[in-house]
Amino acid sequence: MRTDFNIQPCDHSIASELQRIIDGKTKPVGALGRLEELALKIGLIQQTTAPKLNNPTMVVFAGDHGLADEGVSQFPKEVTAQMVLNFLNEGAAINVFTRQNEMNLFIVDAGVDHDFDAYNDHFLNRKVRMGSRNSLYENAVSEAEYRQCLENGREVVDEIHRKGCNIIGFGEMGIGNTSAASLIMAQTLGLSVEACVGRGTGLNDAGLSKKLEILKKVKEKHVEAIQTSSILQAFGGLEMIQMVGAMLQAAQNKMIILVDGFIASTAFLAASKMHQEVKGYAIFCHASAEQGHQLLLSHLDARPLLNLDMRLGEGTGCAIAFPIIQSAVNFLNEMASFESAGVTNEG
Amino acid sequence: MRTDFNIQPCDHSIASELQRIIDGKTKPVGALGRLEELALKIGLIQQTTAPKLNNPTMVVFAGDHGLADEGVSQFPKEVTAQMVLNFLNEGAAINVFTRQNEMNLFIVDAGVDHDFDAYNDHFLNRKVRMGSRNSLYENAVSEAEYRQCLENGREVVDEIHRKGCNIIGFGEMGIGNTSAASLIMAQTLGLSVEACVGRGTGLNDAGLSKKLEILKKVKEKHVEAIQTSSILQAFGGLEMIQMVGAMLQAAQNKMIILVDGFIASTAFLAASKMHQEVKGYAIFCHASAEQGHQLLLSHLDARPLLNLDMRLGEGTGCAIAFPIIQSAVNFLNEMASFESAGVTNEG
Repeated sequence: MRTDFNIQPCDHSIASELQRIIDGKTKPVGALGRLEELALKIGLIQQTTAPKLNNPTMVVFAGDHGLADEGVSQFPKEVTAQMVLNFLNEGAAINVFTRQNEMNLFIVDAGVDHDFDAYNDHFLNRKVRMGSRNSLYENAVSEAEYRQCLENGREVVDEIHRKGCNIIGFGEMGIGNTSAASLIMAQTLGLSVEACVGRGTGLNDAGLSKKLEILKKVKEKHVEAIQTSSILQAFGGLEMIQMVGAMLQAAQNKMIILVDGFIASTAFLAASKMHQEVKGYAIFCHASAEQGHQLLLSHLDARPLLNLDMRLGEGTGCAIAFPIIQSAVNFLNEMASFESAGVTNEG
Repeated sequence: MRTDFNIQPCDHSIASELQRIIDGKTKPVGALGRLEELALKIGLIQQTTAPKLNNPTMVVFAGDHGLADEGVSQFPKEVTAQMVLNFLNEGAAINVFTRQNEMNLFIVDAGVDHDFDAYNDHFLNRKVRMGSRNSLYENAVSEAEYRQCLENGREVVDEIHRKGCNIIGFGEMGIGNTSAASLIMAQTLGLSVEACVGRGTGLNDAGLSKKLEILKKVKEKHVEAIQTSSILQAFGGLEMIQMVGAMLQAAQNKMIILVDGFIASTAFLAASKMHQEVKGYAIFCHASAEQGHQLLLSHLDARPLLNLDMRLGEGTGCAIAFPIIQSAVNFLNEMASFESAGVTNEG
């Protein structure tokens, strides 16, 4: 399924010039490893040999899941709203890490089952519904809601882009959303639910068995969902579909997209099924400890920068990885060359 | 072999209090993965539930190797001095990354075969000799030089510690030093040279064969070197032995030690053979792409934070990893608890 997003593939014509500059830096060829790959990719996205990361921004989409009523998570549903308030009060992990690494942070209410007062400049009310419907009984998201979610994601990214941001990462908060992600992944890739499900926020063995049993029933109910759009409508959630729209618009704007863990990678899977060109703009930041993410990453042919056994979401993997991405840009811009430093290049 | 370093094991009596605070943060238990391990370790080193990283500092020890005359490296020997000048002119990778991450940087001439003018405040002249001797024919380092190196490393760290630094990383520059490191590793762990040798700065197959052949001869000549002190004297180099002394003194001062790649890990191996307590103070930052490092790490039971295919040395792995270590300290100090944020802790 194509959408009305218009995403250009990255132009590779300056790749050899970029590689020549990278190889001329005062280090053995290839010795900065993945930083060199990053520098090349960012140079291609920005079409320059002197890239810059401007106004780096994290956006956390929050939404509730009707399926959470079935007890698929370790935590009760109200934690989604409580955590949004924690974000707004700057007490959550993503607040700590964005503050440390000087990234902007916006919290988007995509569909939390709670009415927030207009809180501060970092809160964006884009609520489509008070949580998605329970996918055990019906589609989690209607077609109209689905389109509204894509549009909201697009509009949020455009607003941030207009403020001069050229690198954007996406996180999420939504009790029950590992269930939705597992279902989207399984259905999209033709895999069993077993291969795609994990402990989420920390289910024990009994909890995991129950989650698995419920998810199998949900998948059975939606066997006819084949297109990406119908898969996303079947399983939701609102925050994930807004993230899909946001990723597609970021690629349309030629922004660098930071992909976080399991949920965000599932949103990226959906985005890439709609527009494969989005891959040229993406940096995978973190391999989650959530089972299923490794398998998803291999399907996406993605090798994240970090593997720190984290499984928190919120975009924390992106925020933690950001300084490494900055290092890639900085070595390209700031390191001396063999020529400029008068260093003998090989014997 | 014990030395006159006096290293106390970390006191674990506050471990359970630290763990309780970590588990009370607004996240599922364990969801910050290795950041949680780091926060616990740093809290234990500093004996506080509110640790701080003060005046983070990188020290790059530079030295030449007599064995480089045999053609074991891709680069000629003069590159060591050229790269020291590059460090002092702030053009090298370690300059870029320490500047970015606001770490102090000192360059120590431990034994470069070149006379540097007193250059700036970041240059410390601790030259013991104009490069080590050629270990193919004799001990690389005499016993007196060995002791001087340990003492110089100690003194450099003490000076930095007096300025209020409590976290220190060590890098190196020395054409030929992967050869010395491979020999030290093989001899210390009773392994074959083959298992410990790699391409260094980028040898091709023929270069690697030649390096291996030479290192086997060198190892054969020094079969009687059994103690850590005699192994280090047999194979050198001056910059690596100064790093051993520096690591031991950092542990004595209860500073956090950042361990870089293959060379630094070999120095750490030697330090830990002298005083196993040093392990309690060490954070392994990066798994090098240099063959042998993975094997060495498994012998040290160490799992580095990063694996970015880097193989540059200079302490670059430490400098790149530093923001992650800061993130670990920051979440411990700054994140809200379930109680303070009013978030429901599990269902």
